[in-house]
Amino acid sequence: NFFSNSTIQRQSKLRTDENWIQEKMTDNKTRYVLMNRNEIVVIPTNKRHLTLLNVNYEMIEKYLPANNRNFVFLGEQDKQCIFAVHLEKLVLAEIVKLHQEARVIHAFPGALKLRQDEASLYSHAVGMLSWQRSQRFCSVCGNATVIKDAGYKLTCSNHKCSTHKGAVSASYPRVDPTIISAVISPDQSRTVLARQPRFPPGMFSCIAGFVEPGESVEACCVREVEEEVGLRVHDVSYLSSQFWPMPASLMLGCLATADGELSVDSAELEDGRWFTREEVVDMMCGRHAGGLFVPPVQAIAHQLLQTWV
Amino acid sequence: NFFSNSTIQRQSKLRTDENWIQEKMTDNKTRYVLMNRNEIVVIPTNKRHLTLLNVNYEMIEKYLPANNRNFVFLGEQDKQCIFAVHLEKLVLAEIVKLHQEARVIHAFPGALKLRQDEASLYSHAVGMLSWQRSQRFCSVCGNATVIKDAGYKLTCSNHKCSTHKGAVSASYPRVDPTIISAVISPDQSRTVLARQPRFPPGMFSCIAGFVEPGESVEACCVREVEEEVGLRVHDVSYLSSQFWPMPASLMLGCLATADGELSVDSAELEDGRWFTREEVVDMMCGRHAGGLFVPPVQAIAHQLLQTWV
Repeated sequence: NFFSNSTIQRQSKLRTDENWIQEKMTDNKTRYVLMNRNEIVVIPTNKRHLTLLNVNYEMIEKYLPANNRNFVFLGEQDKQCIFAVHLEKLVLAEIVKLHQEARVIHAFPGALKLRQDEASLYSHAVGMLSWQRSQRFCSVCGNATVIKDAGYKLTCSNHKCSTHKGAVSASYPRVDPTIISAVISPDQSRTVLARQPRFPPGMFSCIAGFVEPGESVEACCVREVEEEVGLRVHDVSYLSSQFWPMPASLMLGCLATADGELSVDSAELEDGRWFTREEVVDMMCGRHAGGLFVPPVQAIAHQLLQTWV
Repeated sequence: NFFSNSTIQRQSKLRTDENWIQEKMTDNKTRYVLMNRNEIVVIPTNKRHLTLLNVNYEMIEKYLPANNRNFVFLGEQDKQCIFAVHLEKLVLAEIVKLHQEARVIHAFPGALKLRQDEASLYSHAVGMLSWQRSQRFCSVCGNATVIKDAGYKLTCSNHKCSTHKGAVSASYPRVDPTIISAVISPDQSRTVLARQPRFPPGMFSCIAGFVEPGESVEACCVREVEEEVGLRVHDVSYLSSQFWPMPASLMLGCLATADGELSVDSAELEDGRWFTREEVVDMMCGRHAGGLFVPPVQAIAHQLLQTWV
């Protein structure tokens, strides 16, 4: 699936080797991926596709953060190391000026046009860097945090903090498991699609929601479908998963069976309906008479629907 | 699976209804589950099983936290509301004195003896309450946090904090997706089991590790198996999942295929070997000649191995 299909070797054992990381950081063969929150620096490869701007140490040496913040080692690919850095908007603009064709674009929908391996680099980087930005202070004692292990670990600067006495999950990157489910009628003829208020006009998608403490994937799917559209799901089967960089969800794609009248939760959803297979095919192909559509092929919702139709 | 098999209705829409929550909190029909970090208050139901001590509002009114901290609404079961509270050790001891047969025990291995529906209540409670305790300060600005929505949401007390401008994941309970994989030889005759240094002597289990930003379940499984035992996995199939309350992992159980010589990562693992099906059956039944064994039936590793043997 898109956003999780990397050929990079993460080399997690080397993250703690400060000398090795330092050496690779300053190596001019090393590649840097640049971003600012929801913006990325890209070069168009053709009319439809984009690649991330490829810069080396010499080009961005003077902009690099001194304290390991806003900075992460992504891994190695064909013996080339790849790092990502979060830079100020003005700095990005300055770098872009030096590269013909380069431009800064908004990551959504921009990242959907990245080549698949580049999309994975982007999702890895945004997941790590947004976690770092959200963890400037220790959530247990309120003191400043320190980033370690090439961006992958966070410790509290207060040595008396209880976090130093044991591993706490807040020290490691956060990934939010989320179920997304195609709900299919027992005769396989219809599926439930719903609209969140923040969706673009006309877009409908599968039912989704965060996994809570104490739940399995399957139990979460049953709860979310019941809460959002009032249907009791009979069985749930996992199909595949995808990381979704908004900023760090692990989307767990499922198929489930249910039938009956919908009772849509109007606090969360704007609309929810049963759609026939023919309608969904039209929505997937962009030829629905009412102008309705489903998420693009890069989204796991599209993959789930494709498996069903 | 154990720890995720609840019959409780979480009633997530009612969490924001302060009046309803207040009313149910003080209702003497409401049940409270009591704990202190890694300790729980239980009553033996028979020689082998435990249930959580069942107390009502009257019994613990004076101990309840005033600021919604250390406190969570778990849901409704047969029209009875269930809350969980984290109390000081001395308070737990005081309450236990009032109840014949009740006692405070360490949750591990104690919680493994709970009835399955009670184990789910425990895992839901510990996941929520340990998250709350780890989030006393805003990780973005360092100011104190405020708990809302019956324990499920956290906001920053500093109204100028950027977290008030948009949803941030730190505001919601953290669940860490973790893969656990049985690695099987292509002829189905052998599986890989490994020992972490913290395991009880003689215990071997499947390969496990946290999902990182940018990974799918399947990609994480490939990476973890390669990192820990040096084998390249050919295919990965998801089997089932379970929440594991240590304190809040979503264990995603997979089967994967690989073969060859192991190269065990000695920094993370104490030992790792191929075991035959016969050996694994002996380890599951507690009759292995060398005294080796696998995790108990409550652990997903056991379920994965059972599916294979």
